[in-house]
Amino acid sequence: MTDTATNMRLKLPLTCFILEIIIIILFGVLVQYDKETDAKKWHLEKKSENKSDYENDFYYRYPSFQDVHVMIFIGFGFLMTFLQRYGFGSVAFNFLISAFALQWATLMQGFLHGLHDGKIDIGVESMINADFCTGSVLISFGAVLGKTSPVQLLFMALFEVTLFAVNEFILLSVLDAKDAGGSMTIHTFGAYFGLMVARVLYRPNLDKSKQRNCSVYHSDMFAMIGTLYLWMFWPSFNSAITAHGDDQHRTAMNTYYSLAACTLSTFAMSSLTAHDGKLDMVHIQNAALAGGVAAGTAGEMMLTPVGSMIVGFLAGIISVLGFKYLTPILEEKLKIQDTCGVHNLHGMPGVLGAIVGAVTASLASREVYGDGLEDVFPEIAKGHLSASTQGFRQAISLGVTLGIALLGGIVVGFILKLPVCGAPSDAICFEDNIYWEVSLIIAAQPAGGAESPGGDCMINQVDHSTPG
Amino acid sequence: MTDTATNMRLKLPLTCFILEIIIIILFGVLVQYDKETDAKKWHLEKKSENKSDYENDFYYRYPSFQDVHVMIFIGFGFLMTFLQRYGFGSVAFNFLISAFALQWATLMQGFLHGLHDGKIDIGVESMINADFCTGSVLISFGAVLGKTSPVQLLFMALFEVTLFAVNEFILLSVLDAKDAGGSMTIHTFGAYFGLMVARVLYRPNLDKSKQRNCSVYHSDMFAMIGTLYLWMFWPSFNSAITAHGDDQHRTAMNTYYSLAACTLSTFAMSSLTAHDGKLDMVHIQNAALAGGVAAGTAGEMMLTPVGSMIVGFLAGIISVLGFKYLTPILEEKLKIQDTCGVHNLHGMPGVLGAIVGAVTASLASREVYGDGLEDVFPEIAKGHLSASTQGFRQAISLGVTLGIALLGGIVVGFILKLPVCGAPSDAICFEDNIYWEVSLIIAAQPAGGAESPGGDCMINQVDHSTPG
Amino acid sequence: MTDTATNMRLKLPLTCFILEIIIIILFGVLVQYDKETDAKKWHLEKKSENKSDYENDFYYRYPSFQDVHVMIFIGFGFLMTFLQRYGFGSVAFNFLISAFALQWATLMQGFLHGLHDGKIDIGVESMINADFCTGSVLISFGAVLGKTSPVQLLFMALFEVTLFAVNEFILLSVLDAKDAGGSMTIHTFGAYFGLMVARVLYRPNLDKSKQRNCSVYHSDMFAMIGTLYLWMFWPSFNSAITAHGDDQHRTAMNTYYSLAACTLSTFAMSSLTAHDGKLDMVHIQNAALAGGVAAGTAGEMMLTPVGSMIVGFLAGIISVLGFKYLTPILEEKLKIQDTCGVHNLHGMPGVLGAIVGAVTASLASREVYGDGLEDVFPEIAKGHLSASTQGFRQAISLGVTLGIALLGGIVVGFILKLPVCGAPSDAICFEDNIYWEVSLIIAAQPAGGAESPGGDCMINQVDHSTPG
Repeated sequence: MTDTATNMRLKLPLTCFILEIIIIILFGVLVQYDKETDAKKWHLEKKSENKSDYENDFYYRYPSFQDVHVMIFIGFGFLMTFLQRYGFGSVAFNFLISAFALQWATLMQGFLHGLHDGKIDIGVESMINADFCTGSVLISFGAVLGKTSPVQLLFMALFEVTLFAVNEFILLSVLDAKDAGGSMTIHTFGAYFGLMVARVLYRPNLDKSKQRNCSVYHSDMFAMIGTLYLWMFWPSFNSAITAHGDDQHRTAMNTYYSLAACTLSTFAMSSLTAHDGKLDMVHIQNAALAGGVAAGTAGEMMLTPVGSMIVGFLAGIISVLGFKYLTPILEEKLKIQDTCGVHNLHGMPGVLGAIVGAVTASLASREVYGDGLEDVFPEIAKGHLSASTQGFRQAISLGVTLGIALLGGIVVGFILKLPVCGAPSDAICFEDNIYWEVSLIIAAQPAGGAESPGGDCMINQVDHSTPG
Repeated sequence: MTDTATNMRLKLPLTCFILEIIIIILFGVLVQYDKETDAKKWHLEKKSENKSDYENDFYYRYPSFQDVHVMIFIGFGFLMTFLQRYGFGSVAFNFLISAFALQWATLMQGFLHGLHDGKIDIGVESMINADFCTGSVLISFGAVLGKTSPVQLLFMALFEVTLFAVNEFILLSVLDAKDAGGSMTIHTFGAYFGLMVARVLYRPNLDKSKQRNCSVYHSDMFAMIGTLYLWMFWPSFNSAITAHGDDQHRTAMNTYYSLAACTLSTFAMSSLTAHDGKLDMVHIQNAALAGGVAAGTAGEMMLTPVGSMIVGFLAGIISVLGFKYLTPILEEKLKIQDTCGVHNLHGMPGVLGAIVGAVTASLASREVYGDGLEDVFPEIAKGHLSASTQGFRQAISLGVTLGIALLGGIVVGFILKLPVCGAPSDAICFEDNIYWEVSLIIAAQPAGGAESPGGDCMINQVDHSTPG
Repeated sequence: MTDTATNMRLKLPLTCFILEIIIIILFGVLVQYDKETDAKKWHLEKKSENKSDYENDFYYRYPSFQDVHVMIFIGFGFLMTFLQRYGFGSVAFNFLISAFALQWATLMQGFLHGLHDGKIDIGVESMINADFCTGSVLISFGAVLGKTSPVQLLFMALFEVTLFAVNEFILLSVLDAKDAGGSMTIHTFGAYFGLMVARVLYRPNLDKSKQRNCSVYHSDMFAMIGTLYLWMFWPSFNSAITAHGDDQHRTAMNTYYSLAACTLSTFAMSSLTAHDGKLDMVHIQNAALAGGVAAGTAGEMMLTPVGSMIVGFLAGIISVLGFKYLTPILEEKLKIQDTCGVHNLHGMPGVLGAIVGAVTASLASREVYGDGLEDVFPEIAKGHLSASTQGFRQAISLGVTLGIALLGGIVVGFILKLPVCGAPSDAICFEDNIYWEVSLIIAAQPAGGAESPGGDCMINQVDHSTPG
């Protein structure tokens, strides 16, 4: 089942080694410990600012960082293991491109955030931001899951991280937008970028791999591990880089309630849209998370508990409707083959999150925020922007994000078409055996006499067979 | 395999939507950010109390909250996936009723804890308490696992959360009892409530579903994920709402040692009670956790490390004996069909925990607690109660809990018998295909020529079959 | 498949009960709460040192402790579930010996760290150290995985914990070495001890069990859960007992970058060393972690971000080469049957970590560390040792560790040969059915017509068969 095109024996090692060595060189030249991690600088800081070791930012950010980290590696990694024969690729390519992207993002974001004495300072906050950027790449991975080689994924990450950093800089530093949980910078960006890559890499004969583009019982169970970690830790994700104190606390809580309401509306819609009322695991695994995405921008604002719930409630409904009705249309009419349905979990809820953020920002006032206004809306607090202008800037930011994501996705999609990348052919997609030594060979045979409620998805867990 | 009764297409969406909309309305009218999460209030608090952002309660409770959250969604969710054909129902119904219960509990507990200016204040502490209440509902779910519809579960949660909040109020606010880890309020309550519901919903022909009421190799592996998360994070659970400082620290450590000793006695008893000395995964998955339950009440007290170990050691022995000998008796003589054996993990160890708490409380003194007495036993410290009266109050609390749980379980059990709830018939229990679109159909055939050590449990992982 | 030798019905309960009762007695006599956990002592401490409850060490160590705890129970436990028929033994024997080892380690380490008024003081720091010691035992378990009885494992833990504590004392208290992440005390020690035990317990006819000494698709997926938790939480592991403030922060970050670089070089080497370029899950599961091991000693030093990356990059290369070429040689030439390949993940990378630590220590200076020198190298800061002497002490420590580990492993290996231990015969290794009630019986039949890329590993997931 391997042919020269997909033989990674030189392509993958070369790509990994070259990328890692470039990173090492750049880190050697450009990167240093910040004042919270450098032994000498921290002790000077303690003296000059009269701080104790207990005030090191580690204690106030690291627990949230660890939750974000788990979302990146376990959450995204296992959510994508629903594919019955792509478990290795899902979780381990997720692992590979994340390990690369967080390093490259440290450089790209560090560069754009501004050098200190010609150096990039790193600490737990840059680690969180690098994981955020990586999340965006993994969202795009979800759109093309099962249809790329690991070399294509590394190239995609290389360019996407750079574009992410540029977009993030424009939004947060130029437009003064707020987007703590990344409804725009992470979810909208990652989704539409990935969808464009998928469009450019459109596979006209993908139905030849149809029988593997589905789940089986235990792969759905593995995927639920991913779902639940994303759901449980999203409060930490959205609050990870908000200001200390009430901001982190409120953001976590807003997200928690958004997700709870989203779960209820997801189950409701999943049953309602099925002719026999049966729940669809795809909805539970994905749409139940939409509340976290939609609370990304406004989560740190005074969205109110009920506001958070309404946002999540709507996000779940939109997401299930997307999975049910929109994804097939995107595939048939627009030729966008979105493996994981990222448009329904990250795309539309991301846009919803941006809109909610714009509206909530435009309502900001000192009466509501008190002295907390400085933390959430520094530009409004300083009198540089009115609340409605801030809201307008938020809306513009959505447009900028969509522009860079769509355009960037198209360009990068064409780069990934280069033959050197070693993409699989249409007939061998969603198959681990291409890139992995797998002990269990599964043939693409129809299971004898089996009804197949998934329609085209063939049940093929025959345990012994000849390799195809 | 679906009939009109179990068709959820209107029942489930209606139930979810109505419940969620009621919650949203009540949150809109009644719920507000507390002074740790509200931007304006926190900044006023900082000024008036001379606090820094680093003293926001978020930093001292959120890490424990996250561990509790993981126990609720992953711990309970996956522990119940041992059932070979109910993995979706176990983990995803756990997900659904938890998302509902934590919202409803916020309201019920908030109402009973006392309104501030007619509002319920929420923050990380109310989030922890809501998750605690949810835990109790999941314990009851364990008793009826595989035998209910999701609508029944939502109704059960609705009433159980309310009764939990009432019982918790009586114990903690009226009787001045201490129960930080919920041996009484969570475990005893949840177990006996659930057992009564199971009794009322007794199924005379449940043996028709017997072949699915068991595990297979990989479902036992999934369940171990649940077990280990519960075991590892129980120290956080028991300490989550104890007083800052030594209380949280001591409670976590007492629980940790209780569980370690419990694990040793569990393995010992599991092997000892098997005629061939072979270990039983059911014991390892469940009984090894009993130490956490039994250390719930006394965990924050000066139980001493050795005291914690003795408690855990005994809890493991009691629990395994329960699984081995008592559960069959409960089923045959008392008609209580306890799917997960919650009586052995939460019931009896919960009662043990209450007794240990009562005894330990009656021995409290300023010689032992020093100025820490105020934190653990404020009423003794203020001179309102003697230590022996406190111990007596603890014992009364156990009685009250049992009373409300047993009575409440019977009443709610009858409510759940309403036909509108859509319960499955005796022959189609423990089967995901009733409520879920499953790609893999399993027929209830005996595996050809297979010995079946579990006796009645048929091995039936045939991968292709016609739907029954 | 059970014979008198492997019948655990008296051996295991007796061993567990005796060990636990001894521990309980010793805890009763020797162990007390430290000043952070004792109610009276903490409140006295608050007064005398003018501390607030927020300064209790719980808040600055417990989050890291929880991450370490997850690595011990989930990380190690599930990493070893790659064996297709030893999932129960892997995760649940890991559970058992860890629960025992952490208690025994509390005593051994407490005794060697020094008694206070004839008592061992315990708190979160001793809990972390006990988990560290347990990690070493689990590494050794990895070498003999599938080939021992649970009684042998408990005996091994009993002696290994004691030797670990002695070695740790010599290194940290006598030689004044630094080894925060345990490259020497945990990884090197555990690996070489385990390899010697494996050597003494050499099984000449192990090929009779060859068909089970391999993974299947979903067992590799379970193992990835273990891998990812170890990878994600290793920063917490290496930083868990470093000094408050910049030390914990820097150590976590150094480890994070070491692991990221290691992942890239692991994927590269895995593909490069395969004739068809296909990735090998064994490498991804294990070698990708080598960076965490190799950053153990130097992680708290001013290793620099690029230094951390170079260390991880090299560790990944060495580890994959070990899996590919060295493990078969160790087996054929030296008769060391290393089930998990611990030499490649913990042995060689541990030695690399020790060397890196020695070199980095020898370069320590006040110019680099400023006033942070006191935290990382107190003896250099006090002028008792020069940096090069410190480096030399580090190197000596590696030698001492290897000596105690190798010698100790040989002696303990012979103890484990005692017939009372109930070891399985060569033909029934890697089989859960010996010690566990398993519902699914698998016969050692070749799968009909199946190619087997693993060579000797037979695919045998036949779902129904007669018990062997």
